[in-house]
Amino acid sequence: MARTIPVLEIFGPTIQGEGMVIGQKTMFVRTAGCDYRCRWCDSAFTWDGSAKDEIEQLTADEIWRRLEAIGGRRFRHVTISGGNPLLIAALGELIALLHEKGMRVAVETQGSRWQDWLLDIDDVTLSPKPPSSGMDTDWAALDQIIERLQADQSRVRRISLKVVVFDDADLAYAKEVHCRYPSVPFYLQAGNADVADSDVDALRAKLFSRLEWLVEQAADSEELADVHILPQLHTLLWGNKRGV
Amino acid sequence: MARTIPVLEIFGPTIQGEGMVIGQKTMFVRTAGCDYRCRWCDSAFTWDGSAKDEIEQLTADEIWRRLEAIGGRRFRHVTISGGNPLLIAALGELIALLHEKGMRVAVETQGSRWQDWLLDIDDVTLSPKPPSSGMDTDWAALDQIIERLQADQSRVRRISLKVVVFDDADLAYAKEVHCRYPSVPFYLQAGNADVADSDVDALRAKLFSRLEWLVEQAADSEELADVHILPQLHTLLWGNKRGV
Ligand code: SF4
Ligand code: SF4
Repeated sequence: MARTIPVLEIFGPTIQGEGMVIGQKTMFVRTAGCDYRCRWCDSAFTWDGSAKDEIEQLTADEIWRRLEAIGGRRFRHVTISGGNPLLIAALGELIALLHEKGMRVAVETQGSRWQDWLLDIDDVTLSPKPPSSGMDTDWAALDQIIERLQADQSRVRRISLKVVVFDDADLAYAKEVHCRYPSVPFYLQAGNADVADSDVDALRAKLFSRLEWLVEQAADSEELADVHILPQLHTLLWGNKRGV
Repeated sequence: MARTIPVLEIFGPTIQGEGMVIGQKTMFVRTAGCDYRCRWCDSAFTWDGSAKDEIEQLTADEIWRRLEAIGGRRFRHVTISGGNPLLIAALGELIALLHEKGMRVAVETQGSRWQDWLLDIDDVTLSPKPPSSGMDTDWAALDQIIERLQADQSRVRRISLKVVVFDDADLAYAKEVHCRYPSVPFYLQAGNADVADSDVDALRAKLFSRLEWLVEQAADSEELADVHILPQLHTLLWGNKRGV
Protein backbone atom coordinates (compact mmCIF):
# COMPACT_ATOMS: atom_id res chain seq x y z
CA MET A 1 0.00 0.00 0.00
CA ALA A 2 1.18 3.51 -0.79
CA ARG A 3 2.42 5.43 2.21
CA THR A 4 0.80 8.74 3.09
CA ILE A 5 2.23 12.19 3.62
CA PRO A 6 0.84 14.71 6.15
CA VAL A 7 -0.06 17.76 4.04
CA LEU A 8 -1.23 21.16 5.27
CA GLU A 9 -1.44 23.21 2.09
CA ILE A 10 -1.20 22.76 -1.65
CA PHE A 11 -1.25 25.99 -3.63
CA GLY A 12 0.00 27.84 -6.69
CA PRO A 13 1.12 28.56 -9.28
CA THR A 14 2.90 31.41 -7.56
CA ILE A 15 6.50 32.54 -7.26
CA GLN A 16 9.21 31.36 -4.94
CA GLY A 17 9.92 34.15 -2.51
CA GLU A 18 13.32 33.20 -1.14
CA GLY A 19 16.93 32.32 -1.71
CA MET A 20 18.45 30.59 -4.71
CA VAL A 21 15.05 29.91 -6.32
CA ILE A 22 13.64 33.41 -5.84
CA GLY A 23 11.19 34.35 -8.57
CA GLN A 24 10.77 30.79 -9.88
CA LYS A 25 7.19 30.00 -10.84
CA THR A 26 6.24 27.04 -8.70
CA MET A 27 3.54 25.06 -6.89
CA PHE A 28 3.85 24.58 -3.13
CA VAL A 29 3.20 21.44 -1.10
CA ARG A 30 3.48 22.23 2.59
CA THR A 31 4.00 19.28 4.92
CA ALA A 32 3.12 19.20 8.61
CA GLY A 33 5.58 18.77 11.47
CA CYS A 34 8.89 20.24 12.54
CA ASP A 35 11.66 19.15 14.90
CA TYR A 36 12.44 22.84 15.63
CA ARG A 37 10.48 25.59 17.39
CA CYS A 38 12.00 28.78 16.01
CA ARG A 39 10.96 31.88 17.92
CA TRP A 40 10.06 33.77 14.73
CA CYS A 41 8.77 30.81 12.71
CA ASP A 42 6.45 32.08 9.98
CA SER A 43 4.89 28.63 9.54
CA ALA A 44 4.27 27.81 13.21
CA PHE A 45 0.87 26.42 12.21
CA THR A 46 2.73 23.45 10.73
CA TRP A 47 3.81 22.31 14.22
CA ASP A 48 2.05 24.23 17.01
CA GLY A 49 -1.23 22.34 16.78
CA SER A 50 -3.25 25.38 15.63
CA ALA A 51 -3.93 23.83 12.21
CA LYS A 52 -4.10 20.22 13.40
CA ASP A 53 -7.54 19.68 11.92
CA GLU A 54 -6.37 20.82 8.47
CA ILE A 55 -3.73 18.11 8.11
CA GLU A 56 -4.60 15.56 5.43
CA GLN A 57 -2.85 12.23 4.98
CA LEU A 58 -2.35 11.99 1.21
CA THR A 59 -0.54 9.55 -1.05
CA ALA A 60 1.89 10.80 -3.69
CA ASP A 61 -0.76 10.09 -6.28
CA GLU A 62 -3.41 12.10 -4.48
CA ILE A 63 -1.02 15.04 -4.11
CA TRP A 64 -0.25 14.97 -7.83
CA ARG A 65 -3.96 14.97 -8.67
CA ARG A 66 -4.49 18.02 -6.44
CA LEU A 67 -1.54 19.80 -8.03
CA GLU A 68 -2.93 19.14 -11.49
CA ALA A 69 -6.43 20.16 -10.45
CA ILE A 70 -5.33 23.62 -9.37
CA GLY A 71 -2.23 24.16 -11.54
CA GLY A 72 -3.28 22.48 -14.77
CA ARG A 73 -0.41 22.53 -17.25
CA ARG A 74 0.79 25.87 -15.99
CA PHE A 75 3.80 24.74 -13.92
CA ARG A 76 7.06 22.74 -14.21
CA HIS A 77 8.41 23.25 -10.71
CA VAL A 78 7.17 22.09 -7.31
CA THR A 79 8.44 23.25 -3.93
CA ILE A 80 8.08 20.96 -0.93
CA SER A 81 8.12 23.10 2.18
CA GLY A 82 7.26 22.70 5.83
CA GLY A 83 7.74 22.49 8.66
CA ASN A 84 10.69 20.24 8.03
CA PRO A 85 9.99 17.93 5.05
CA LEU A 86 13.03 15.86 6.02
CA LEU A 87 10.97 14.25 8.78
CA ILE A 88 8.90 12.43 6.14
CA ALA A 89 10.38 9.36 4.46
CA ALA A 90 7.31 8.87 2.24
CA LEU A 91 8.10 12.05 0.31
CA GLY A 92 10.46 9.89 -1.75
CA GLU A 93 7.45 8.54 -3.62
CA LEU A 94 6.12 12.02 -4.38
CA ILE A 95 9.50 13.19 -5.65
CA ALA A 96 9.81 10.20 -7.97
CA LEU A 97 6.31 10.83 -9.32
CA LEU A 98 6.96 14.55 -9.84
CA HIS A 99 10.10 13.73 -11.82
CA GLU A 100 8.12 11.26 -13.93
CA LYS A 101 5.74 14.12 -14.73
CA GLY A 102 8.63 16.31 -15.89
CA MET A 103 8.78 18.55 -12.82
CA ARG A 104 11.81 19.98 -11.07
CA VAL A 105 11.57 19.77 -7.31
CA ALA A 106 12.84 22.13 -4.60
CA VAL A 107 13.09 21.51 -0.86
CA GLU A 108 14.03 23.77 1.99
CA THR A 109 15.15 22.37 5.34
CA GLN A 110 17.12 23.55 8.36
CA GLY A 111 19.54 20.66 7.81
CA SER A 112 18.92 18.69 10.99
CA ARG A 113 17.81 15.38 9.41
CA TRP A 114 18.67 13.15 6.47
CA GLN A 115 16.50 11.21 4.03
CA ASP A 116 17.92 9.39 1.01
CA TRP A 117 15.44 11.18 -1.24
CA LEU A 118 17.33 14.41 -0.63
CA LEU A 119 19.75 13.20 -3.30
CA ASP A 120 16.88 13.36 -5.81
CA ILE A 121 16.00 17.01 -5.18
CA ASP A 122 16.89 19.50 -7.93
CA ASP A 123 17.07 22.64 -5.77
CA VAL A 124 18.21 22.04 -2.20
CA THR A 125 18.20 24.98 0.21
CA LEU A 126 19.75 24.31 3.60
CA SER A 127 18.82 27.01 6.09
CA PRO A 128 20.47 26.41 9.47
CA LYS A 129 18.90 28.64 12.12
CA PRO A 130 20.77 31.55 13.73
CA PRO A 131 20.85 32.37 17.47
CA SER A 132 17.73 34.60 17.32
CA SER A 133 15.68 31.49 16.54
CA GLY A 134 16.45 30.06 19.98
CA MET A 135 17.61 26.80 18.34
CA ASP A 136 21.03 25.12 18.44
CA THR A 137 22.69 23.96 15.23
CA ASP A 138 23.62 20.29 14.99
CA TRP A 139 26.85 20.87 13.09
CA ALA A 140 27.60 17.16 12.74
CA ALA A 141 24.24 16.59 11.03
CA LEU A 142 24.73 19.58 8.73
CA ASP A 143 28.31 18.53 7.89
CA GLN A 144 27.08 15.10 6.92
CA ILE A 145 24.21 16.35 4.78
CA ILE A 146 26.49 18.67 2.81
CA GLU A 147 29.15 15.97 2.43
CA ARG A 148 26.64 13.45 1.13
CA LEU A 149 25.12 15.91 -1.33
CA GLN A 150 28.51 17.01 -2.61
CA ALA A 151 29.84 13.44 -2.86
CA ASP A 152 26.92 12.27 -5.00
CA GLN A 153 27.47 13.11 -8.67
CA SER A 154 24.64 10.98 -10.03
CA ARG A 155 22.55 13.98 -11.02
CA VAL A 156 22.77 17.73 -11.60
CA ARG A 157 21.48 19.57 -8.57
CA ARG A 158 21.85 23.03 -7.15
CA ILE A 159 22.49 23.41 -3.47
CA SER A 160 22.71 26.55 -1.38
CA LEU A 161 22.93 27.67 2.21
CA LYS A 162 20.63 30.39 3.48
CA VAL A 163 20.79 32.15 6.81
CA VAL A 164 18.09 34.51 8.04
CA VAL A 165 19.63 37.48 9.83
CA PHE A 166 17.87 39.62 12.45
CA ASP A 167 20.81 41.07 14.41
CA ASP A 168 24.57 41.13 14.94
CA ALA A 169 24.68 37.71 16.61
CA ASP A 170 22.88 36.22 13.60
CA LEU A 171 25.33 37.94 11.27
CA ALA A 172 28.28 36.42 13.17
CA TYR A 173 26.57 33.03 12.87
CA ALA A 174 26.07 33.55 9.13
CA LYS A 175 29.78 34.21 8.72
CA GLU A 176 30.55 31.03 10.66
CA VAL A 177 28.31 28.99 8.35
CA HIS A 178 29.76 30.54 5.20
CA CYS A 179 33.35 29.99 6.35
CA ARG A 180 32.60 26.38 7.30
CA TYR A 181 31.20 25.56 3.83
CA PRO A 182 32.95 28.01 1.49
CA SER A 183 32.13 25.99 -1.64
CA VAL A 184 28.35 26.16 -1.13
CA PRO A 185 26.62 29.23 -2.65
CA PHE A 186 25.56 31.39 0.27
CA TYR A 187 22.44 33.52 0.78
CA LEU A 188 21.74 36.07 3.49
CA GLN A 189 18.06 36.80 4.07
CA ALA A 190 16.71 39.81 5.92
CA GLY A 191 14.54 38.56 8.79
CA ASN A 192 10.86 39.38 9.19
CA ALA A 193 10.28 40.17 12.88
CA ASP A 194 6.58 40.86 12.41
CA VAL A 195 5.05 37.58 11.34
CA ALA A 196 1.69 38.71 12.73
CA ASP A 197 1.63 42.24 11.29
CA SER A 198 -1.15 42.65 8.75
CA ASP A 199 -0.41 46.23 7.62
CA VAL A 200 1.43 45.53 4.37
CA ASP A 201 2.76 49.09 3.87
CA ALA A 202 4.28 49.30 7.34
CA LEU A 203 5.67 45.79 6.96
CA ARG A 204 7.31 46.67 3.63
CA ALA A 205 8.97 49.76 5.05
CA LYS A 206 10.37 47.74 7.95
CA LEU A 207 11.55 44.90 5.73
CA PHE A 208 13.34 47.27 3.35
CA SER A 209 15.10 49.01 6.20
CA ARG A 210 16.27 45.60 7.49
CA LEU A 211 17.42 44.63 4.00
CA GLU A 212 19.28 47.90 3.61
CA TRP A 213 21.04 47.30 6.91
CA LEU A 214 21.98 43.78 5.84
CA VAL A 215 23.33 44.95 2.47
CA GLU A 216 25.50 47.52 4.29
CA GLN A 217 26.84 44.89 6.70
CA ALA A 218 27.69 42.53 3.86
CA ALA A 219 29.14 45.33 1.72
CA ASP A 220 31.61 46.13 4.51
CA SER A 221 32.70 42.52 5.07
CA GLU A 222 35.64 40.66 3.55
CA GLU A 223 34.34 37.35 4.90
CA LEU A 224 31.08 37.96 3.07
CA ALA A 225 32.79 38.92 -0.20
CA ASP A 226 30.87 36.38 -2.29
CA VAL A 227 27.30 36.14 -1.08
CA HIS A 228 23.76 36.89 -2.15
CA ILE A 229 21.56 39.20 -0.07
CA LEU A 230 17.81 38.94 -0.55
CA PRO A 231 14.47 39.79 1.04
CA GLN A 232 11.46 37.48 1.30
CA LEU A 233 9.74 38.53 -1.90
CA HIS A 234 6.37 36.97 -1.10
CA THR A 235 6.20 38.82 2.24
CA LEU A 236 6.96 42.11 0.48
CA LEU A 237 4.23 41.35 -2.04
CA TRP A 238 1.53 39.84 0.08
CA GLY A 239 2.48 40.44 3.71
CA ASN A 240 1.95 37.61 6.15
CA LYS A 241 -0.91 35.96 4.23
CA ARG A 242 -0.98 32.18 3.89
CA GLY A 243 -1.43 30.33 0.60
CA VAL A 244 0.08 32.83 -1.85
CA MET B 1 49.49 50.39 -25.91
CA ALA B 2 46.53 49.30 -23.84
CA ARG B 3 43.19 50.22 -25.32
CA THR B 4 40.80 52.35 -23.27
CA ILE B 5 37.20 51.81 -22.26
CA PRO B 6 34.64 54.65 -21.91
CA VAL B 7 33.47 54.43 -18.30
CA LEU B 8 30.68 56.41 -16.64
CA GLU B 9 30.48 54.90 -13.17
CA ILE B 10 32.37 52.48 -10.96
CA PHE B 11 30.63 51.65 -7.69
CA GLY B 12 29.95 49.04 -5.06
CA PRO B 13 30.05 46.69 -3.35
CA THR B 14 26.29 46.53 -3.62
CA ILE B 15 23.78 43.91 -4.72
CA GLN B 16 22.62 42.98 -8.18
CA GLY B 17 19.04 44.08 -8.51
CA GLU B 18 17.83 42.06 -11.48
CA GLY B 19 17.33 38.73 -13.16
CA MET B 20 19.39 35.59 -12.77
CA VAL B 21 22.03 37.31 -10.60
CA ILE B 22 19.55 39.06 -8.27
CA GLY B 23 20.97 39.53 -4.79
CA GLN B 24 24.58 38.75 -5.80
CA LYS B 25 27.06 41.01 -4.04
CA THR B 26 28.93 42.75 -6.84
CA MET B 27 30.84 45.80 -8.07
CA PHE B 28 29.48 47.71 -11.07
CA VAL B 29 31.40 49.14 -14.02
CA ARG B 30 29.06 51.15 -16.21
CA THR B 31 30.21 51.82 -19.75
CA ALA B 32 29.03 54.69 -21.95
CA GLY B 33 27.16 54.33 -25.22
CA CYS B 34 24.16 52.42 -26.52
CA ASP B 35 22.91 51.48 -29.99
CA TYR B 36 19.31 51.62 -28.67
CA ARG B 37 17.13 54.50 -27.44
CA CYS B 38 14.53 52.77 -25.28
CA ARG B 39 11.63 55.00 -24.30
CA TRP B 40 11.84 54.04 -20.64
CA CYS B 41 15.63 53.61 -20.41
CA ASP B 42 16.73 53.99 -16.79
CA SER B 43 20.33 54.67 -17.84
CA ALA B 44 19.67 57.25 -20.56
CA PHE B 45 22.61 59.27 -19.23
CA THR B 46 24.87 56.63 -20.77
CA TRP B 47 23.85 57.70 -24.29
CA ASP B 48 21.82 60.95 -24.32
CA GLY B 49 24.78 63.28 -23.85
CA SER B 50 23.65 64.50 -20.42
CA ALA B 51 26.64 62.90 -18.67
CA LYS B 52 29.11 63.39 -21.53
CA ASP B 53 31.58 65.25 -19.33
CA GLU B 54 31.68 62.39 -16.81
CA ILE B 55 32.93 59.78 -19.29
CA GLU B 56 36.49 58.69 -18.56
CA GLN B 57 38.65 56.71 -20.95
CA LEU B 58 40.27 54.08 -18.73
CA THR B 59 42.47 51.08 -19.39
CA ALA B 60 41.61 47.69 -17.90
CA ASP B 61 44.39 48.23 -15.39
CA GLU B 62 43.07 51.59 -14.31
CA ILE B 63 39.57 50.16 -13.87
CA TRP B 64 40.91 47.37 -11.69
CA ARG B 65 42.78 49.85 -9.52
CA ARG B 66 39.59 51.88 -9.03
CA LEU B 67 37.64 48.72 -8.17
CA GLU B 68 40.24 47.77 -5.58
CA ALA B 69 40.39 51.29 -4.19
CA ILE B 70 36.68 51.35 -3.39
CA GLY B 71 35.92 47.64 -2.92
CA GLY B 72 39.10 46.43 -1.24
CA ARG B 73 38.95 42.67 -0.75
CA ARG B 74 35.25 42.76 -0.15
CA PHE B 75 34.04 41.45 -3.53
CA ARG B 76 34.43 38.48 -5.92
CA HIS B 77 31.97 39.48 -8.62
CA VAL B 78 31.94 42.36 -11.10
CA THR B 79 29.03 43.43 -13.29
CA ILE B 80 29.73 45.25 -16.52
CA SER B 81 26.65 47.24 -17.42
CA GLY B 82 25.74 50.03 -19.78
CA GLY B 83 24.48 51.28 -22.08
CA ASN B 84 25.39 48.33 -24.22
CA PRO B 85 28.81 46.95 -23.23
CA LEU B 86 28.82 44.86 -26.42
CA LEU B 87 29.78 48.01 -28.36
CA ILE B 88 33.21 47.94 -26.71
CA ALA B 89 35.81 45.49 -28.00
CA ALA B 90 38.41 46.62 -25.45
CA LEU B 91 36.37 45.13 -22.60
CA GLY B 92 38.03 41.82 -23.46
CA GLU B 93 41.16 43.04 -21.67
CA LEU B 94 39.23 43.98 -18.54
CA ILE B 95 37.45 40.62 -18.44
CA ALA B 96 40.74 38.73 -18.73
CA LEU B 97 42.23 40.82 -15.93
CA LEU B 98 39.19 40.33 -13.68
CA HIS B 99 39.43 36.58 -14.15
CA GLU B 100 43.13 36.70 -13.29
CA LYS B 101 42.14 38.41 -10.04
CA GLY B 102 39.70 35.61 -9.21
CA MET B 103 36.52 37.50 -10.07
CA ARG B 104 33.38 36.22 -11.75
CA VAL B 105 32.01 38.60 -14.35
CA ALA B 106 28.44 39.38 -15.36
CA VAL B 107 27.21 41.30 -18.40
CA GLU B 108 23.78 42.44 -19.45
CA THR B 109 23.00 43.37 -23.05
CA GLN B 110 19.95 43.66 -25.29
CA GLY B 111 21.54 41.12 -27.65
CA SER B 112 22.02 43.30 -30.72
CA ARG B 113 25.80 42.96 -31.09
CA TRP B 114 28.52 40.34 -30.73
CA GLN B 115 32.01 40.46 -29.26
CA ASP B 116 34.20 37.38 -28.88
CA TRP B 117 34.75 38.24 -25.20
CA LEU B 118 31.10 37.38 -24.56
CA LEU B 119 32.25 33.75 -24.48
CA ASP B 120 34.37 34.60 -21.42
CA ILE B 121 31.51 36.01 -19.34
CA ASP B 122 30.34 33.92 -16.38
CA ASP B 123 26.80 35.34 -16.09
CA VAL B 124 25.27 36.46 -19.40
CA THR B 125 21.88 38.16 -19.31
CA LEU B 126 20.31 38.82 -22.71
CA SER B 127 17.45 41.29 -22.45
CA PRO B 128 15.80 41.89 -25.81
CA LYS B 129 13.51 44.92 -25.66
CA PRO B 130 9.71 44.62 -25.86
CA PRO B 131 7.41 46.83 -27.98
CA SER B 132 6.96 49.44 -25.23
CA SER B 133 10.64 50.35 -25.63
CA GLY B 134 9.98 51.61 -29.16
CA MET B 135 12.83 49.43 -30.44
CA ASP B 136 12.76 46.58 -32.98
CA THR B 137 14.40 43.25 -32.16
CA ASP B 138 17.08 42.02 -34.55
CA TRP B 139 16.12 38.35 -34.32
CA ALA B 140 18.96 37.19 -36.55
CA ALA B 141 21.51 38.85 -34.26
CA LEU B 142 19.90 37.39 -31.14
CA ASP B 143 19.65 33.91 -32.73
CA GLN B 144 23.33 34.00 -33.53
CA ILE B 145 24.42 35.19 -30.09
CA ILE B 146 22.47 32.42 -28.38
CA GLU B 147 23.72 29.79 -30.83
CA ARG B 148 27.34 30.80 -30.34
CA LEU B 149 27.04 30.84 -26.55
CA GLN B 150 25.31 27.46 -26.50
CA ALA B 151 27.75 25.91 -28.97
CA ASP B 152 30.81 26.89 -26.93
CA GLN B 153 31.49 24.36 -24.17
CA SER B 154 34.94 25.65 -23.26
CA ARG B 155 33.79 27.04 -19.92
CA VAL B 156 30.94 26.89 -17.42
CA ARG B 157 28.69 29.88 -17.87
CA ARG B 158 25.14 30.73 -16.97
CA ILE B 159 22.99 32.41 -19.55
CA SER B 160 19.47 33.74 -19.26
CA LEU B 161 16.93 35.77 -21.17
CA LYS B 162 15.13 38.62 -19.45
CA VAL B 163 12.20 40.60 -20.76
CA VAL B 164 10.87 43.72 -19.06
CA VAL B 165 7.07 43.80 -19.22
CA PHE B 166 4.95 46.95 -19.01
CA ASP B 167 1.75 45.88 -20.77
CA ASP B 168 -0.07 43.16 -22.73
CA ALA B 169 1.92 43.72 -25.91
CA ASP B 170 5.14 43.28 -23.95
CA LEU B 171 3.77 40.10 -22.40
CA ALA B 172 2.98 38.70 -25.85
CA TYR B 173 6.53 39.58 -26.91
CA ALA B 174 7.92 37.84 -23.82
CA LYS B 175 6.06 34.67 -24.75
CA GLU B 176 7.48 34.88 -28.27
CA VAL B 177 11.03 35.16 -26.92
CA HIS B 178 10.55 32.29 -24.47
CA CYS B 179 9.03 30.03 -27.15
CA ARG B 180 11.83 30.85 -29.57
CA TYR B 181 14.56 29.87 -27.08
CA PRO B 182 12.89 27.32 -24.79
CA SER B 183 16.19 25.94 -23.47
CA VAL B 184 17.37 29.29 -22.09
CA PRO B 185 16.26 30.10 -18.50
CA PHE B 186 13.69 32.86 -18.79
CA TYR B 187 13.03 35.86 -16.55
CA LEU B 188 10.09 38.26 -16.61
CA GLN B 189 10.75 41.62 -14.99
CA ALA B 190 8.08 44.08 -13.90
CA GLY B 191 8.74 47.39 -15.68
CA ASN B 192 9.39 50.67 -13.89
CA ALA B 193 7.40 53.36 -15.71
CA ASP B 194 8.56 56.13 -13.38
CA VAL B 195 12.29 56.42 -13.92
CA ALA B 196 12.15 60.05 -12.76
CA ASP B 197 9.95 59.58 -9.67
CA SER B 198 11.84 60.37 -6.50
CA ASP B 199 9.14 59.46 -3.95
CA VAL B 200 10.36 56.00 -2.91
CA ASP B 201 7.17 54.97 -1.06
CA ALA B 202 4.89 55.80 -3.98
CA LEU B 203 7.32 54.13 -6.37
CA ARG B 204 7.38 50.95 -4.27
CA ALA B 205 3.59 50.74 -4.16
CA LYS B 206 3.38 51.11 -7.94
CA LEU B 207 6.16 48.59 -8.57
CA PHE B 208 4.55 45.99 -6.33
CA SER B 209 1.21 46.39 -8.02
CA ARG B 210 2.92 45.89 -11.40
CA LEU B 211 4.74 42.84 -10.08
CA GLU B 212 1.52 41.42 -8.69
CA TRP B 213 -0.15 41.86 -12.08
CA LEU B 214 2.77 40.16 -13.81
CA VAL B 215 2.73 37.22 -11.39
CA GLU B 216 -1.00 36.78 -12.07
CA GLN B 217 -0.48 36.86 -15.83
CA ALA B 218 2.31 34.29 -15.64
CA ALA B 219 0.39 32.13 -13.15
CA ASP B 220 -2.45 31.84 -15.66
CA SER B 221 -0.25 30.96 -18.62
CA GLU B 222 0.71 27.53 -19.95
CA GLU B 223 3.33 29.04 -22.27
CA LEU B 224 4.95 30.67 -19.24
CA ALA B 225 4.89 27.46 -17.17
CA ASP B 226 8.62 27.55 -16.40
CA VAL B 227 9.75 31.12 -15.83
CA HIS B 228 11.04 33.41 -13.13
CA ILE B 229 9.18 36.61 -12.25
CA LEU B 230 11.14 39.31 -10.46
CA PRO B 231 11.11 43.01 -9.62
CA GLN B 232 14.09 45.37 -9.84
CA LEU B 233 15.31 44.99 -6.29
CA HIS B 234 17.61 48.02 -6.31
CA THR B 235 14.74 50.28 -7.44
CA LEU B 236 12.55 48.95 -4.64
CA LEU B 237 15.33 49.60 -2.16
CA TRP B 238 16.75 52.89 -3.35
CA GLY B 239 14.31 54.30 -5.89
CA ASN B 240 15.78 55.89 -9.01
CA LYS B 241 19.08 56.91 -7.42
CA ARG B 242 22.32 56.41 -9.37
CA GLY B 243 25.40 54.68 -7.99
CA VAL B 244 23.84 52.28 -5.49
S1 SF4 C 1 12.79 25.09 11.19
FE1 SF4 C 1 11.45 26.30 9.87
S2 SF4 C 1 9.37 25.41 10.10
FE2 SF4 C 1 10.66 24.61 11.79
S3 SF4 C 1 10.25 26.02 13.49
FE3 SF4 C 1 12.09 26.81 12.44
S4 SF4 C 1 11.30 28.30 10.93
FE4 SF4 C 1 9.56 27.06 11.63
S1 SF4 D 1 19.25 48.93 -24.45
FE1 SF4 D 1 19.38 49.37 -22.25
S2 SF4 D 1 20.85 51.11 -22.05
FE2 SF4 D 1 20.24 50.96 -24.22
S3 SF4 D 1 18.53 52.43 -24.40
FE3 SF4 D 1 17.63 50.39 -24.00
S4 SF4 D 1 17.38 50.28 -21.75
FE4 SF4 D 1 18.81 52.00 -22.21
